[in-house]
Amino acid sequence: MQDISEYLVKNKERFINELIHLLKIPSVSADPAYSQDVINASEAVKASLLEAGCDTAEICETNGYPIVYGEKIINPELPTVLVYGHYDVQPADPIDLWNSPPFEPIIKSTDIHPEGAIFARGACDDKGQMYMHVKALEFMVKTNQLPCNVKFMIEGEEEVGSENLGTFVAENKEKLANDIILISDTGMIANNVPSITTGLRGLSYVEVEVTGPNRDLHSGLYGGAVANPINVLAKMIAALHDENNHITIPGFYDKVEELSKEERAEMAKAPFSLENYKKALDIKAVYGEKGYTTNERNSIRPTLDVNGIWGGYIGAGAKTVIASKAYAKISMRLVPNQDWKEITNLFKTHFESLAPEGVTVKVTPHHGGQGYVTPIDNNAYKAASKAYETTFGKTPIPQRSGGSIPIVSLFEQELKSKTILMGFGLDSDAIHSPNEHFGVWNYLKGIETIPYFYQYFTELSK
Amino acid sequence: MQDISEYLVKNKERFINELIHLLKIPSVSADPAYSQDVINASEAVKASLLEAGCDTAEICETNGYPIVYGEKIINPELPTVLVYGHYDVQPADPIDLWNSPPFEPIIKSTDIHPEGAIFARGACDDKGQMYMHVKALEFMVKTNQLPCNVKFMIEGEEEVGSENLGTFVAENKEKLANDIILISDTGMIANNVPSITTGLRGLSYVEVEVTGPNRDLHSGLYGGAVANPINVLAKMIAALHDENNHITIPGFYDKVEELSKEERAEMAKAPFSLENYKKALDIKAVYGEKGYTTNERNSIRPTLDVNGIWGGYIGAGAKTVIASKAYAKISMRLVPNQDWKEITNLFKTHFESLAPEGVTVKVTPHHGGQGYVTPIDNNAYKAASKAYETTFGKTPIPQRSGGSIPIVSLFEQELKSKTILMGFGLDSDAIHSPNEHFGVWNYLKGIETIPYFYQYFTELSK
Repeated sequence: MQDISEYLVKNKERFINELIHLLKIPSVSADPAYSQDVINASEAVKASLLEAGCDTAEICETNGYPIVYGEKIINPELPTVLVYGHYDVQPADPIDLWNSPPFEPIIKSTDIHPEGAIFARGACDDKGQMYMHVKALEFMVKTNQLPCNVKFMIEGEEEVGSENLGTFVAENKEKLANDIILISDTGMIANNVPSITTGLRGLSYVEVEVTGPNRDLHSGLYGGAVANPINVLAKMIAALHDENNHITIPGFYDKVEELSKEERAEMAKAPFSLENYKKALDIKAVYGEKGYTTNERNSIRPTLDVNGIWGGYIGAGAKTVIASKAYAKISMRLVPNQDWKEITNLFKTHFESLAPEGVTVKVTPHHGGQGYVTPIDNNAYKAASKAYETTFGKTPIPQRSGGSIPIVSLFEQELKSKTILMGFGLDSDAIHSPNEHFGVWNYLKGIETIPYFYQYFTELSK
Repeated sequence: MQDISEYLVKNKERFINELIHLLKIPSVSADPAYSQDVINASEAVKASLLEAGCDTAEICETNGYPIVYGEKIINPELPTVLVYGHYDVQPADPIDLWNSPPFEPIIKSTDIHPEGAIFARGACDDKGQMYMHVKALEFMVKTNQLPCNVKFMIEGEEEVGSENLGTFVAENKEKLANDIILISDTGMIANNVPSITTGLRGLSYVEVEVTGPNRDLHSGLYGGAVANPINVLAKMIAALHDENNHITIPGFYDKVEELSKEERAEMAKAPFSLENYKKALDIKAVYGEKGYTTNERNSIRPTLDVNGIWGGYIGAGAKTVIASKAYAKISMRLVPNQDWKEITNLFKTHFESLAPEGVTVKVTPHHGGQGYVTPIDNNAYKAASKAYETTFGKTPIPQRSGGSIPIVSLFEQELKSKTILMGFGLDSDAIHSPNEHFGVWNYLKGIETIPYFYQYFTELSK
């Protein structure tokens, strides 16, 4: 394969500017206020696929936001890679913690990204990482080096649970037929420590509502005499963990895969500095399930976190009120073998049982997905590993991630395909947080590495 | 005294319209967005005092919102009554639960108020009840029946802790000199069960902030590995009550006055239907401190309630985030002998001690005030009781209220005056809640009753 380095040097500015163009579209799928922007982003992705060299690209309507499908078929006899990504982004809240507007991308240097990083919502998750694939295709097509067939399936509802993707996949099995699914929506350990994600956690996301009296009450006249929904909600949330930070939902751990001592010892070899971890987050101590290390807590162990809570008066100053209702958004990260629907039901039953008389509780499941462990002995893993060796000069480390891409297990079920997760972001890139960014070096390194994956995967598949 | 009934019939429409005019001013003292409206309300009150017959009325500047002072001195030898009230109102949130806009007053009939009630923020608390005094003065002045001197001190910061009233009172002792302080900022049991409030709870209102990591984090990558400020805050709030709903703050109950069996038996005689109470609030059960009845829980016992809580993502849909910070507003209602400053310190020390490593906690006191018990054997109580007998045809019941008017103990300390609390609102009037209202009957009954208090108090003081 002709070296891509030269192509990158020549086109670097354009590659960055094209990504910035895409990042300017506030395609927040969770918030209906941005619905036209989400649509606009799908159109932009379609156009970019055609420009990069796809034979066809189309907007596929669903019951929610559309899925962009594109393909470049050079020979049906050759292997086919299906690239999955998403063009929707997380909400930018809390806006006031951003140092620059979330949808006005700027490039700034940081300690970790001395060559600059693009700051914008979606810079890393997942517009930047998805767009690496578009540009990698462009290189292979323009230089006549594409060694196999490529299909793209870029959706717009990943951040809200990919609700309509399952139907689309089930109804388009032939169109989506492939030999391997390739996704860049995870991270790697460090720029000098490449890694491949081999496990993802599942997810169950619910919203809870606690209702006490039928209206807000004066806390002097009613305080102490009726159940205060906020105090009750706090009590119920507190009861979800015991003193060792184990989750108390009956049956929650029944199917959790317990790793052997040897496997845990192997995991512990990954480079990690607890001191740097605490320093980066400005915390004096980590906190979590007793008996597990930090890296185990956020990868092989299931968790339960409140992602949002609200109730009563939250404006300036004081209001002596007892709220009628209190709310929380709660998510559980699940490990392989835990079924998200079963866990959602266990949560609902348990949470409702925690409510004292005097309040009513409503649990509304938002979305969820299964966890996944990818094999490391197949051609795809070997091809990816070799690609990293070529461009990083180092063998990547297999690593379980704490995040979730619920559709990976869906793909395996519907399309009978394995997935390979080649992520080029860093944990410190602040995805889902204010000041999300993506290193320019990482962006270009992704574009450089991906074509080698195609080359090696095609060679190994012969 | 010439009967006031006729005067009321003649002027009823005007009295209602004048109050509506005042209610249209959104004088929300807690929210800086309304600062000009608060000022406008003070001007309106000043004008109304002059129109009603005060010799002088003035806007007295403070470091916060001004205090309106007015007086009608007919003879320095005669007794002087100081009327206290406030022209500021609670925030109207949550706005979407109002059936009509909070600052566009309308009159509607209800089951309890068949003659109509004025719906607006501040209708009862305290614009409506304060304005009864202005109109009572008007009657007495216009009919030449004022039997004593009257002073008015109407402030604009009651709903935010009366922060500047203490200084004003201390610096104007001579101006404010009086024989009794008269306040209508409490309620009565029912329209056919008049009552006089003889006890008020104290208050300590604080805001707490729990900080974990220095930025919002992705709950997949960090979930389970760092302290989540919302989960921690929930745990800390839950720990403030034990399984019997006693407050766990060390020293909290040390000075709480324990009532005797006889006193509690006397209290229990007040008419009260637990079934109607639950029905009015749509709750299956009441909830509170073990060993006490509902009426005891909200009057003679101290309480701790969360008035607001917020943190993380609270928009539509789902966001898998671990918030950097979580917040709550917490208030404690205190009983006589509990010192609010001491209790605030006990809370702060205890709350901070509940924080696990991995988070930092900030406790900010908002405001507070002492509880109070008014005597029932003095001339003021006797005069008030006789006034109710005259206009209601029934002897009022002495009743402890769960609410707080922190400045009552301040008045006693600085002005050496006792206070009499003649409230004409009902608990169901939804003060501090959406759809606050004040019965037209109650408004007029207040205007009718107050002049008799002046008459009997002057007679008894001879």
